Amino acid sequence: MLTDKESTPESTFDPVPEAKRLLRCSRVATLATLAEPEGFPFASLVNVATAPDGSLILLLSRLAGHTRHLDADPRMSLLLYSAINRPSKGDPLAHSRLTILGKAKRATDAIEEMLRTRFLARHPKSSIYADFVDFGFFHVTIEAAHLNGGFGRAANISAEKLLTPVGDADDLTAEEPDLLAKITEKEPDFAHDLAQANGGASEKAWRAVGFDPEGLDIGNEERLIRIPFADRVTTEKELRTQIAALLAKARKPS
Amino acid sequence: MLTDKESTPESTFDPVPEAKRLLRCSRVATLATLAEPEGFPFASLVNVATAPDGSLILLLSRLAGHTRHLDADPRMSLLLYSAINRPSKGDPLAHSRLTILGKAKRATDAIEEMLRTRFLARHPKSSIYADFVDFGFFHVTIEAAHLNGGFGRAANISAEKLLTPVGDADDLTAEEPDLLAKITEKEPDFAHDLAQANGGASEKAWRAVGFDPEGLDIGNEERLIRIPFADRVTTEKELRTQIAALLAKARKPS
Repeated sequence: MLTDKESTPESTFDPVPEAKRLLRCSRVATLATLAEPEGFPFASLVNVATAPDGSLILLLSRLAGHTRHLDADPRMSLLLYSAINRPSKGDPLAHSRLTILGKAKRATDAIEEMLRTRFLARHPKSSIYADFVDFGFFHVTIEAAHLNGGFGRAANISAEKLLTPVGDADDLTAEEPDLLAKITEKEPDFAHDLAQANGGASEKAWRAVGFDPEGLDIGNEERLIRIPFADRVTTEKELRTQIAALLAKARKPS
Repeated sequence: MLTDKESTPESTFDPVPEAKRLLRCSRVATLATLAEPEGFPFASLVNVATAPDGSLILLLSRLAGHTRHLDADPRMSLLLYSAINRPSKGDPLAHSRLTILGKAKRATDAIEEMLRTRFLARHPKSSIYADFVDFGFFHVTIEAAHLNGGFGRAANISAEKLLTPVGDADDLTAEEPDLLAKITEKEPDFAHDLAQANGGASEKAWRAVGFDPEGLDIGNEERLIRIPFADRVTTEKELRTQIAALLAKARKPS
């Protein structure tokens, strides 16, 4: 699908971790859909969240144009852009952004509760309207991605490289809210301390909003921080070990 | 093209001035194009500027996917979003954004110099690469627009309402750089003083970057401010009268 020639490999530029960071930290994105008639492209703004595997979640209203477009043709693109999610200075084209190509379809009953839990953990204010009759969750499967890491730094990234395998971690991710509650009960400041050590120093009200085999997502009302694990986790014990290691590092006097 | 039903008229919500403000103040936007094969939507980031009539200007590299898409099919959409252009707090969906539908085509010789002058006045740093052989200016004609002014505030806006008639002001706009230089020579602080009075108080290095019959654009390296005229201008005398009136208001002790 992506036949771009603009990839310019640089020894110092590692596109996959940056693409994963944008995928996991973005709370808002631009959505491109196909409008009637005859597939005119249509750009709009949406809130986004990730499922454990990194596939995306949208909460859309039937009253909005993009929702009707997706019901008619699920093909879409999302631009995840650090400066929308985290204001920054300078030329916007110097900052990294990730184009996702994929399909967005209404949630099936089998996964709706997971999508809802993950989305509302990342967008707590959306609980005000998430249950309105016209709103519904959409699940975005990713087919291809393109990272533009700033001038001269571009790379196509396969869905396989961007996504996180979760087949061996179903038991773990199914218990996500309970496990986070248990860890927080034992270590009430852990999300705050991890945020302080990972670029969230001057902000408050951090909480753990989710995890997957590759990392932990810390959030507050306006921002997400991604903290990758050193080793992949598929059990509660491994999860606790990784979080303990991150905490030890965060709390170590510098 | 837009058959959206979400328009919810409110007596206090005037969509056209807000749409014009987003159109004129945006320096960066998300572009939706149609990728091969079979018109998959593709979202990417671009810098934008306006021609005097409000039609848009892009500076694109032949090496980028979106440029190849537009050369094959000029249909596109642009999302102009205040929070990309001006960081703001709170739920991004509460802030206004404008979806433009139209066509982007390579500049013809007849208008390339105008597009270049307007674009580089708004993006001075782009002069570094504007003349690279792979870069070219594109002119975006607007066919329809949709303003989402935040929850429950949406309106379709015709191209006619969004654009600025300029047919009677060709002589004036053709002299834009010279006229701005003359006004600045006489009143070196005028852009700075207008910026201070129009929301640019704490920032420096403001300059007048352009005008059209409906208003003046003030800019610095990171931001544009739109200052509408009280009355439409089509002559140098009317332009000077409107700017003098804005300056008198800006400098009036409060």
